[in-house]
This record gives sequence, structure tokens and C-alpha cells, in this order.
Amino acid sequence: MESQGEKTKRFRALHHAVHPLVLPNAWDVPSARAFEDAGFPAVATSSAGLMVSRGYPDGEEMPRRELVDAVARIASRLSIPLSADVVAGYGRDAREVVTTVRQIIRSGAVGINLEDFDHANGKLFPLETQLERLRAVRGLEVAPGVPLVLNARTDALRHGSGDESTRLEETIERLRAFRDAGADCVYPMGLTDAPAITKVVRALDCPVNVMVRRGLPPVPELERLGVKRISFGPSASYATFGLLQRASEEIRTHGTFHNLVDGAISFDELNRLATARARASDLRR
Amino acid sequence: MESQGEKTKRFRALHHAVHPLVLPNAWDVPSARAFEDAGFPAVATSSAGLMVSRGYPDGEEMPRRELVDAVARIASRLSIPLSADVVAGYGRDAREVVTTVRQIIRSGAVGINLEDFDHANGKLFPLETQLERLRAVRGLEVAPGVPLVLNARTDALRHGSGDESTRLEETIERLRAFRDAGADCVYPMGLTDAPAITKVVRALDCPVNVMVRRGLPPVPELERLGVKRISFGPSASYATFGLLQRASEEIRTHGTFHNLVDGAISFDELNRLATARARASDLRR
Repeated sequence: MESQGEKTKRFRALHHAVHPLVLPNAWDVPSARAFEDAGFPAVATSSAGLMVSRGYPDGEEMPRRELVDAVARIASRLSIPLSADVVAGYGRDAREVVTTVRQIIRSGAVGINLEDFDHANGKLFPLETQLERLRAVRGLEVAPGVPLVLNARTDALRHGSGDESTRLEETIERLRAFRDAGADCVYPMGLTDAPAITKVVRALDCPVNVMVRRGLPPVPELERLGVKRISFGPSASYATFGLLQRASEEIRTHGTFHNLVDGAISFDELNRLATARARASDLRR
Repeated sequence: MESQGEKTKRFRALHHAVHPLVLPNAWDVPSARAFEDAGFPAVATSSAGLMVSRGYPDGEEMPRRELVDAVARIASRLSIPLSADVVAGYGRDAREVVTTVRQIIRSGAVGINLEDFDHANGKLFPLETQLERLRAVRGLEVAPGVPLVLNARTDALRHGSGDESTRLEETIERLRAFRDAGADCVYPMGLTDAPAITKVVRALDCPVNVMVRRGLPPVPELERLGVKRISFGPSASYATFGLLQRASEEIRTHGTFHNLVDGAISFDELNRLATARARASDLRR
């Protein structure tokens, strides 16, 4: 059984491999375990997926305690590294953000996403405010001498000011500052087209994270562009509820169940997703 | 806003309509809300789906307190009637089962599924034991003069003794006794083929519940056979994790994201599944 510190080192190294890290985002225990079983080397949480699954919209409306509980529950059933999205850190100041991240690490996560969007007023945090927060969590260790893996996200492409090109400049400026503050990886939310990805990757010399959405180039092209981390974001949740819509429509229109039974897993397979792989192999016998 | 008592009456009436009640089973808030938005008149929980989503295998390993919390959370976001699967009632005796069901009603559910499978020893409860439990919960009211909707399930087709035909006889015998003990609906778990369904429906004169699985006839044929309630069981969970497997396989093999982005819902749509419909319309504005 790998220690949390060893998992952290392995997770960090995955950002510096030849091939980009493809990182699926889960929202509960079985979605995380399904991605583990599918062979991904690590799993992250999606804040939107996780919060909505508990009955809260994305943001910081869900109590911090519940976020920590949800992350702990997933981590306890997962053998591979888990990175947690902590939104903007649930803090009025850097000290409170540190408290959040400390709890998230204790819950078993080895890395976090921290964004610069202030959910209280719907604007980006001033750059200096966000840097103070990043520097404050940068020092947190998962194990002695093993700092957490810090993925620093900016929402400047969506919430920055000016036209698209100005927002891209602001994005790059913020990401550079995040990198210099010690981020292991930087994450320009909403970046999908190849020319802009190229520009961001070239402007930085640290791992860059892009998120799956319609229009994102496929993995081999992203690798060619120099992207080091490709996360799903909430896309697996979006896909799941698309499937439920199709299944519902099919049943209500035709009275048939193809969307529910074709390509589905079994009862035993579902049950095995509830527990850690070691225990799931016991159940298998 | 319909009261819990009114919802209970409406839910009970749905078992006596011309068309069968098609009842989707959800496992968390957004899956329940997605089925509500799709136009189903009521939602049930799937014990396997719900428990696995919280990191427990199906059965009674998940603490009762957590089951009640999970049901309460779904009920609080749902405007249509919610029926909860309480497995075998989490009780060593009828009194403890009553405590469970009382808590489930207080959490906002208007009906329950109660099964006759003893998770402690992997056998069916003796018929008299199960009847005692059913009679004890039968008297519980959701509102003054409004008893809960009781769906009594037998696992005799899977866990009864003898060959298939003997187990079908035992199933019918148990369901008759459950009906006479006051069940609103009876549920022969594992019944899928038309001749056996016909036999069960004819042997009883109360609503019969069948569950979606491969081989179940489509809704119009089930209606013709006299089935009054068609529930999804855990099939929507099975389908969801089948989709995650296909999406994972696609990304790992081809580096593309079609399973994630084609036919998916949007961020705003996902967020709206976190909250009650009334509030979701606010968010929509």
C-alpha cells in the first residue's frame, strides 16, 4: 500500500512525463473507482460534479465540512492519487484557505485545484490577493518534505476584462505569476483552441492543464502542443445526465430500455465500485 | 407546494391508473431531479445505486443514519413524490424496522420498498417474520389518515428453495400474504419473462411491480400483461458506469472525447439539477 507521500511524488511526476497526464474528474466513490479500474494513473474531483451530486450548485455554497467529507470518502476507497478541487479555497483570507487545504490533505488528497474567482462578488481576485493565497498553501506538506501538488487556475478568459485577446494576455500574466509563486501546474479555464493553447504553453515553462469540452483537440494533438495535463472537468457528469435524458425520452416515447441496458455494467460490477480495489478483489472471489 | 400527505395520495393513485406507473430509480439529488425534469410523475431510490454512490455495497452495511440523510437530501430538492428503498428495514425485529421507516417518512419520502431478504444470514426471512414487519410498518402514516405507500418485495425467485417453478410458487405465496398484510404493491424481484409475469399478475389482485433489466418486455406489453409499476432498479447506475467505461476506453485508445461531449448537458443544466425546480427556475432567469 503506497503512502500518501509516495502518491504525491508519483502524481507530481506524472506532470513531467513524455505523454500528458489524462486526468478524469469524478464526483463520488464509484465514478472515481470506475476511472481507477479503467487504468488512469490518478483521479481528480470535479467541484461542479461533486457539489451537484450532493444537492448544491457549483461554487462555495456547499459547506466546507461536506466537501472535506466527500473528498475523504473518495480517497478512502481509491488506491491511486486523488487531487481535489477546492474552488477558491473557502476563505475570506489566505489563512482560511490554508485551513481548507490542510483539511483536504488530511482527508487523503495529494493535490488541489485553486481558482482565482471570487464567488462572493463574481469577479476575479486581484492578482496580489491570489498570489498571497497560493504562496500560503504552497508550503503545505502531504508528508515531511513532500509538498502538495498545486494546480493554479485562472478564470481570466471568462471573467477578465477587455476583448478575447486582452483576456488571453491577462490569463498568461496571471499564470506566469502563479508559476513564480510555486504552482506545479497552471490551468487556464476555458482554453480550447489550438492557437491559444500554443500561445499559453510557449509563454510558460511549467505544466499547463486544459479541460475537456467540445472543440478541444484530441490527446495526441494536445501532446504535440506541449500540454501536460488534460482533465475532464465536469464533462463526465454532463455526459451522465445526457444519458439519463436519452433513457427517459426513450422510455416515455417508445417504452423501451435500450439506453438503460445496452452497454451497462452488472450488479456485481456496481458493488465492486463501492469499495477499495483490494476489498473489491475479495468480493470477486 | 403540494404537502407530503397530498403527494402520498397522488403516488398511491398512480398504482391504479390505466397506464402503469413508470418509476425511475435515482441515487442522488441530480439523478432524481433529472428524472423529475424528464416528466416522470414520481421517483424512487435504488438502494444499490444510492449506497454505492456513498461508498457502500448494496445491503445494510451503510449506516441507517446515512441512508436517512441521503433520502432527506433528495426529498428536499424534489417536488414530486419520492419512494425510498429501505432494503430489509435495518432491524433485528419489527420494532426496529418501524423506527427506520418512521425516520424515512420524516425525511420526506411518501413510500418505501421493504424486502424479505435477511442480509445478516443471506436467506429469506421466514414468512411470518416478514409479515410481522409489514404489518408493523403498515400502520405508519405520512400525514393524519394518510398511510405510507408500501411496496413489499420478495427475493424468493433468487433465494427461495427448489427449482424455478417451485420458487415462482413460493414467490406467489409470499406476495399474496404481503398483499393480505396490507401492501399497496408487491414486487417479485427478478421477474422478467412474460409467462411468469402473467402468472403472478393473475394470481394477485393488487398492483405488481417489475424491474427493468435485459429481457424485460417493453412498457406497452407490460401494460397489456397487467403490470402496474415498472421501476428501473439500479439500471440507470449500471448504464452510467457503462458510459464511463466507454468514455475511458475511447480516451485511452483514441485520445478523443465523443462519449463525454456528444449528447451531454451543459454546466447551467447541471447546476439546475442541484436545487428544487422552483429555485432552478430562479437560476434560469
